[in-house]
Amino acid sequence: MSEQAIAYLKENQEALLQKLYDFLAIPSVSTDPAHKEDVQRAADFLTGYLNELGFENVEKMETKGHPLVFAEYTEAGPEAPTVLLYGHYDVQPVDPIDLWDSEPFQAEVRDGRIYARGSSDDKGQTFMHLAVFEAFLKTEGKLPMNVKVCIEGEEEIGSENLYELLQDKKEQFQADFAVISDSGMAEKNQPTILYGLKGFTGIEITLTGPDHDLHSGMYGGAVRNPLMAMSHLLASMKDEKEVITIDGFYDDVEDLTSAERELMEKAPGEDFVKATNIPETVSEKGYTAKEHTMGRPTLEVNGLFGGYQGDGTKTIIPSTATAKITCRLVPGQDPQDIQEKLVNHVQKFAPSGVHVHVEKEKLSAKAYKVEPDHPLIKKAAKSYSKAFGKETVFLRMGGSIPVVEWLEAAYQYPIVLLGFGTPEDRLHSPNESFPVDSFQKGMETLAYYWNEL
Amino acid sequence: MSEQAIAYLKENQEALLQKLYDFLAIPSVSTDPAHKEDVQRAADFLTGYLNELGFENVEKMETKGHPLVFAEYTEAGPEAPTVLLYGHYDVQPVDPIDLWDSEPFQAEVRDGRIYARGSSDDKGQTFMHLAVFEAFLKTEGKLPMNVKVCIEGEEEIGSENLYELLQDKKEQFQADFAVISDSGMAEKNQPTILYGLKGFTGIEITLTGPDHDLHSGMYGGAVRNPLMAMSHLLASMKDEKEVITIDGFYDDVEDLTSAERELMEKAPGEDFVKATNIPETVSEKGYTAKEHTMGRPTLEVNGLFGGYQGDGTKTIIPSTATAKITCRLVPGQDPQDIQEKLVNHVQKFAPSGVHVHVEKEKLSAKAYKVEPDHPLIKKAAKSYSKAFGKETVFLRMGGSIPVVEWLEAAYQYPIVLLGFGTPEDRLHSPNESFPVDSFQKGMETLAYYWNEL
Repeated sequence: MSEQAIAYLKENQEALLQKLYDFLAIPSVSTDPAHKEDVQRAADFLTGYLNELGFENVEKMETKGHPLVFAEYTEAGPEAPTVLLYGHYDVQPVDPIDLWDSEPFQAEVRDGRIYARGSSDDKGQTFMHLAVFEAFLKTEGKLPMNVKVCIEGEEEIGSENLYELLQDKKEQFQADFAVISDSGMAEKNQPTILYGLKGFTGIEITLTGPDHDLHSGMYGGAVRNPLMAMSHLLASMKDEKEVITIDGFYDDVEDLTSAERELMEKAPGEDFVKATNIPETVSEKGYTAKEHTMGRPTLEVNGLFGGYQGDGTKTIIPSTATAKITCRLVPGQDPQDIQEKLVNHVQKFAPSGVHVHVEKEKLSAKAYKVEPDHPLIKKAAKSYSKAFGKETVFLRMGGSIPVVEWLEAAYQYPIVLLGFGTPEDRLHSPNESFPVDSFQKGMETLAYYWNEL
Repeated sequence: MSEQAIAYLKENQEALLQKLYDFLAIPSVSTDPAHKEDVQRAADFLTGYLNELGFENVEKMETKGHPLVFAEYTEAGPEAPTVLLYGHYDVQPVDPIDLWDSEPFQAEVRDGRIYARGSSDDKGQTFMHLAVFEAFLKTEGKLPMNVKVCIEGEEEIGSENLYELLQDKKEQFQADFAVISDSGMAEKNQPTILYGLKGFTGIEITLTGPDHDLHSGMYGGAVRNPLMAMSHLLASMKDEKEVITIDGFYDDVEDLTSAERELMEKAPGEDFVKATNIPETVSEKGYTAKEHTMGRPTLEVNGLFGGYQGDGTKTIIPSTATAKITCRLVPGQDPQDIQEKLVNHVQKFAPSGVHVHVEKEKLSAKAYKVEPDHPLIKKAAKSYSKAFGKETVFLRMGGSIPVVEWLEAAYQYPIVLLGFGTPEDRLHSPNESFPVDSFQKGMETLAYYWNEL
């Protein structure tokens, strides 16, 4: 059955790519109010396509922000499983525009790659799903499973309204499992299924000493310097062996099994030193860099500032110091609990002589993990391997995708992270691109997968 | 003899104030290229006044930046001492202009204070010297001493060209001692002579990890965070008892004598908590806040920055962290030696995994101290007490005045810091002002002093 669909995809590749380019041409930059209408147009493109395919209940759900595109396909019948397809049609801004080698919203193929904003993240990957639906419908006249489509327009700005929508319309989004293609392969043409994501929480700390910047000669020796106080406080959170020294931070961490550690060791991956030009990697005592990035929690200072930042010297004791801190969490850890432990640590270890203010990060998420031998995952891996002609690897990733945690919390069903990006795609950067052959093989993977179900 | 001069100053107060207001009306903001011509006009005002007084060799010495006003008076004869009068005619910018209650360059007297930028720092105090010269010349026909006038236009931007000029024209600026009125009293109407200033040095540290900001999920656990590394490094420089933990930092510090500690304890001064709204003072273990500010070295982080500073969260590992650090030094400490020790400390204690770059502060200065019972100081104190009707106090100050160190290094002569500002003058801030009666009594102090010599 999938053979016919795959033949269709091959025969119609040019037309499908042209349609994708039309989609990519809409500058649906969600963060920029100037592009509000464009975001709407991108949603209209999707509802148009879904109507064309004969999906039911095609709807542009308005939110406080940008709309979410919903649609259903139920003709596979009540015996067939229902998959929720999540994707997003909004994109990151294109600045700095000077660094693009071609127009960001005018797709151009160079060296086998489609260059355009959104080609990989996530318009391209979302479009692949719709094209595969088209192939089945044009050849078989039906899909092998029921579908609920949920393509949002606010992923790049934190999925602000999706969470509420999932709460309010829980029934409407109900399914048996979910598939998301918004991630990548460990390396090009290396079938990769993510079976775990990290959770997320954070705090912002402001230490205020004097109520205005002071002359360091007149007041130095009487007043606690907020920047030095902040340095002491931050240094008390993680030691030089990269072990987090917040009381109880590791209490609920699920240990890595030796099987997982082996999997991680074998997993292909970037050469961190080459890719980032650091002198050497550092990782938590007792764990390799790969193990730490994939499977151990982290605490990072994302921003730190206070005092004079211009050229030369300004001899002040600054009034304030601010630090932005986020943690990536692993299975077992509860984001609220960790956030509370961070706050307690700050209250306990902030030096005297400064006023302490802590702001809690609002968006927190638990880590996500599905067993790699879950039947839905095994079938996905089989399809992936078949399309790419190579054994699939299973990875946990250091990143977080909030919607994954929200879906799991709401429905407790498996989420299959079936992404086709490559490490060279330059997501969020100038010259974003996606390989033409990944487009083709990715669609084949999906066709095999739907058939396997 | 000084009585006649003082009578002249009283009788002509209005005219002298009017002349001062004309001087203050010139917006000689040295840091702002838009005011380049105004700075020249302020210098012209001074050369005009000095020519009017009959000074010799009146000269607007051009530099790479703003000019320095030089003039001589030699008619007191070879037996009389020669004083070098140092002052500056440039001023700080006036922003934020909204916070001024009257025009910054249109002097206005309210509640016995002259409100205008430069009224205290240092046009007002410099002008007082010229007015006293006028009083002697108009009444006695001559001054009791020889004078070299050195009034620069770049003090507020670091006296960049003065140092070179002092080297190049060492002979021209030669004198027996120097008087500087660019400081203040411990409190209004409390005669105060500064007998010590702190020295100064510094470094700027940049730690570079990855060559671009990284996704904290993808790389957290493999890459040293430069902001966390900087926190560890800075925390290693000073402990929470405010003791500097740089190896050898205190080696050459001249201990405070018990007499000095007593002097400091009795000295009037600000309530640090009230003035700055800090929860409490902190100072070096074993020393009070007064002792530390006046007589013990300090190390301050003046600026610290890296990563994301906007609203909300950006989950990056930043590429760089930068810290600006300066030290105030006390007698005995050598700025170059301390700078070297700072650099060595950074090299030794910077965590692994980051590239380390240290920039040395170019302007360093030794601490300055003159014995409070030096005859020139005692005479100054006597004159000060006579004019203000109150015993003079002797203070060391936490600030640094680079020209003081340069003069001392070049000529090894005493420098009398005879300042008339008050703690309420708001130097460098909106609504700078100077008391009318300090203007009068300050001039009387100078008249007595010249006579005492």
